[in-house]
Amino acid sequence: MTKYYSETTINSMEQRYRATFINSLGGFKSVSLVGTKNKAGKTNLAIFNSIFHLGANPPLVGMVVRPDSVERHSYENILETGFYTLNHLNQSIFINAHQTSARYKREESEFEKCKLTETYLSDFKAPYVKESSVKVGLLLRDTKRIELNDTIIVIGEIKQVHLEESIISPDGFIDLEAAGSITCSGLDSYHKTERMGRLSYAKPYTWPSFI
Amino acid sequence: MTKYYSETTINSMEQRYRATFINSLGGFKSVSLVGTKNKAGKTNLAIFNSIFHLGANPPLVGMVVRPDSVERHSYENILETGFYTLNHLNQSIFINAHQTSARYKREESEFEKCKLTETYLSDFKAPYVKESSVKVGLLLRDTKRIELNDTIIVIGEIKQVHLEESIISPDGFIDLEAAGSITCSGLDSYHKTERMGRLSYAKPYTWPSFI
Repeated sequence: MTKYYSETTINSMEQRYRATFINSLGGFKSVSLVGTKNKAGKTNLAIFNSIFHLGANPPLVGMVVRPDSVERHSYENILETGFYTLNHLNQSIFINAHQTSARYKREESEFEKCKLTETYLSDFKAPYVKESSVKVGLLLRDTKRIELNDTIIVIGEIKQVHLEESIISPDGFIDLEAAGSITCSGLDSYHKTERMGRLSYAKPYTWPSFI
Repeated sequence: MTKYYSETTINSMEQRYRATFINSLGGFKSVSLVGTKNKAGKTNLAIFNSIFHLGANPPLVGMVVRPDSVERHSYENILETGFYTLNHLNQSIFINAHQTSARYKREESEFEKCKLTETYLSDFKAPYVKESSVKVGLLLRDTKRIELNDTIIVIGEIKQVHLEESIISPDGFIDLEAAGSITCSGLDSYHKTERMGRLSYAKPYTWPSFI
C-alpha cells in the first residue's frame, strides 16, 4: 500500500532513521573514492556519494562536502593543493571503499588502513587508487557554500583521465559495466548494474529507439 | 590497455563526443522526472540526471539546470510557483522518461506527449507521475549560479513523499530495487541494478560486515 509521508512525519523521524530514509530518496548515486595529499605529503582517501556532472565544456564535476565529517580531511587537502582524484568503485574494492568512511586520525592514511594502493600517474599531484578502473584527475575551480545546512559544493575541472581503451565506444560513451563500476543507494548499499539499453537522441513527435 | 587522456586530448575532443565522454566519467547517476506547473496551470515534465543528496536535516536535494536547454521550462515553473516533484524512473517508463528530453514547445505538456499520467496527491501544488513508484514533493529553498559554465544549482526541501510501505526497512532504508527504480550513465544509457549488499557503519581498526 502506498504510504504518504507528510512534512510532519518526516520532521519527527529519529535522526539516524531520517538520514537513512532521506539518503535513499534521490535514487541510485554516483560513488567514487576521492584521493588527496597535503603539502607535507600525507595522503587521504574518502568515499563520496554526492558526485554530480556539472558540464562538459569545460569538463566540470561537483561534489558535496560536509565540514563536520571525515570528508573535511579531503576538503582541507583540496584547498591546500588544488588537486584531487576520483576513482570509481568496483566489486573487488567496495568494502575497502566503504571502510574509508571510518573516522581515522588525520595522521593515518586510508590508503594503508583500508588496503588500497596509492599510485601516481602522468605527473598528477594527487594520488590515484591503483585498483580502480576509471581514474579522473581534477583541479579545484570553485566552491559554493550552502548556507541552508552549512555544506560546501566543491567544483573541479577534469584535467586527466585513465581508463581501459576497450570500454570506450566510437561516440565517446564509456561502458561503465565493462569497467566494473558500481552504484550505491542510501548510506551503505552497493549495487552492480545491468544495462537495459542506450536510447537515441530524443526528438519531438517521434519515439526513441535502442542504439 | 589503459589509455591516458591528457588535458589537451580532452580539450580537442569533438563537442558531442566530449559531452558523451565527460557525462560518463562521474559514474552511474541519479535520474528522475521533474514535474512542474506554471501559474497558468500548464504542466511540464523533464528528465534530470544531475540530482544529488545535499543533506538530511533539513532534507535537501540539489539538481543542475542548464538554462539553454529544455530544462529551462522546468526551472521557470519552479521559480514561478516554488513547487516541484521528483519521480523515480522504472523499467516500464524509462523510454517515456527519456522522450521528455525532446524539445517540445512551451505550450505542450510532456505528460501528454510522452504518455505519462499527471496526478495530484495530498494537496501538493506540483504534478506527480502516476507510474512512478517513488514520488517526492519539494519546495524551492535556494539557487546557486555557477559562473564557470552558466548553470544553476536548484536546491529544494523535501516536503512530502509517497511510496510503497513494504519497501521501507525498519531502519529507514528504502529498497530502491523493490521499487523498480533504475539508474543511468552517460547521456542515454539506462540500467537496472542488483544489490551486492549493505555494509555496517564503518569504524576504524575493524572491517565492515554485511547487514
